[in-house]
Amino acid sequence: MRLIAGIELGGTKIVCGLGTAGGELVDRARIDTRRPAETLDDVDAALRQFGDAHGAFSTIGIGTFGPVHLDPESPDYGHIGMTPKVPWRGFDLLGHFTDRWKMPVALDTDVTAAAFGEARWGAAVGAASVVYITVGTGIGAGVLIDGTPVHGFMHPEVGHVRLPRAPGDDYPGACPYHGDCAEGMAAGPSIMARWGAPLSDLPDDHPAYVQTAHYLAHLVTIVLLFYAPQKVVMGGGVMTNGRLFGPVRRGVRELLQGYLAVPRVEEHIDTLIVAPGLGNDAGILGCVAMAADLRS
Amino acid sequence: MRLIAGIELGGTKIVCGLGTAGGELVDRARIDTRRPAETLDDVDAALRQFGDAHGAFSTIGIGTFGPVHLDPESPDYGHIGMTPKVPWRGFDLLGHFTDRWKMPVALDTDVTAAAFGEARWGAAVGAASVVYITVGTGIGAGVLIDGTPVHGFMHPEVGHVRLPRAPGDDYPGACPYHGDCAEGMAAGPSIMARWGAPLSDLPDDHPAYVQTAHYLAHLVTIVLLFYAPQKVVMGGGVMTNGRLFGPVRRGVRELLQGYLAVPRVEEHIDTLIVAPGLGNDAGILGCVAMAADLRS
Repeated sequence: MRLIAGIELGGTKIVCGLGTAGGELVDRARIDTRRPAETLDDVDAALRQFGDAHGAFSTIGIGTFGPVHLDPESPDYGHIGMTPKVPWRGFDLLGHFTDRWKMPVALDTDVTAAAFGEARWGAAVGAASVVYITVGTGIGAGVLIDGTPVHGFMHPEVGHVRLPRAPGDDYPGACPYHGDCAEGMAAGPSIMARWGAPLSDLPDDHPAYVQTAHYLAHLVTIVLLFYAPQKVVMGGGVMTNGRLFGPVRRGVRELLQGYLAVPRVEEHIDTLIVAPGLGNDAGILGCVAMAADLRS
Repeated sequence: MRLIAGIELGGTKIVCGLGTAGGELVDRARIDTRRPAETLDDVDAALRQFGDAHGAFSTIGIGTFGPVHLDPESPDYGHIGMTPKVPWRGFDLLGHFTDRWKMPVALDTDVTAAAFGEARWGAAVGAASVVYITVGTGIGAGVLIDGTPVHGFMHPEVGHVRLPRAPGDDYPGACPYHGDCAEGMAAGPSIMARWGAPLSDLPDDHPAYVQTAHYLAHLVTIVLLFYAPQKVVMGGGVMTNGRLFGPVRRGVRELLQGYLAVPRVEEHIDTLIVAPGLGNDAGILGCVAMAADLRS
């Protein structure tokens, strides 16, 4: 049985996994994100342990926090970009793993990895184009068009669009760059700052749901108008309890006003905008999926 | 010399052209858009005349107004969708030309054709990913990612996003579906309705420029965050006099606040957001470009 290593690199924690080409996760480890050298020593140790316990793996898939340089033509290819996590700025993530492990490495953003995971084994199986949106500490999206991730001069950064404000909402926003972009108005930190608690601790009828859904409905509407994906999968901590899906779907239809006159929007929006089929494992399984296609 | 026919199908006029695989336009004709049968009789006559005058062409490229069904798997493939041009609704445009001409036909939206034209012979030569935005009677965009048009369950409809309003702007908007979406606030009809004249008739210091640029800067910012294209080409009647480029570029940088920290945004935005290199011929030459790659 061919084995594949996955590494989901987040700002606070790293999930390492060992998976099969069929999407089974046979082992996993969790590592706290610190400075690159010590953190990746721990990651390498976890991968070695996987190998000792289950047999050698032949390729590695990495989904990382961004920004990350993904243009193979660029001298910065595989390096972390201008992240607020200062010690990681400019770090050659791809180089580290290709040097250390001498095997093919697939690299993309954490959200693109999650989109791959959902497309291969999750809620988006059979969909030609998939957008995975995470709403957690930040807001980001991975976009697959006909199975290929959208990268231009960089990967998408959908969380930083400015949206019309909810009626009566005068919160300045929590994004250090933009204040009231989507991320600044609807990600976890802005919910904490406004209401003093995460959404999951607030009762069903709390106005935080309506307000957060306002911004997410606007964001998803742009996703539909720009990419027209067959599936929009929404994950991340803010989405976890599932209560936002109803108001987001209703908000999207209200914003579109019948303009995208197709059954998947008009009649089946509950199967167009969905929760991750793989739950919290979308990212790590997506790393495995990305590397499953590499030749070892 | 191989000849290619192009047909740019607009809501008020149709441009037919005969071109070469090198991008030279050797003949052209203009036809008013009426009901499908009579209009396309004239188009067919124009194409026959091209053949008589210059020799036979071997493929046809069509760029049409939307919405149009572009999913080859769909039973509606090649048919016009729910357009306000009622006689064209459901019309089998692709079928008409393949039946009548018995040769390979490439079909996409008019704006995607323009993106192909600019990418092949215009302002976006050498750019892997290109977005062509037209700002005219409506607002639309053609999107090429690594040379391939973005289609999901339909083609992009970027003109219908809602944007934050310009300070003090209380115009309800001219879009029959959405009122104040981008198209409703910044396309030609809304400028006429607000100011009683097209932008080109208004003096340089008229507030219409600032207001229109506000919405277009928001729209282009979303284009950059979602697609990160190497070139954004802006055409259409509203852009023609060139005066909006300065305020749109400044607006985009202001909205991004340094978030896309790459030289092409931070230092070279004047070569990132540009006018069409092919002027008004972007669409018809793009039709030729699309069909130049078909095997005859």
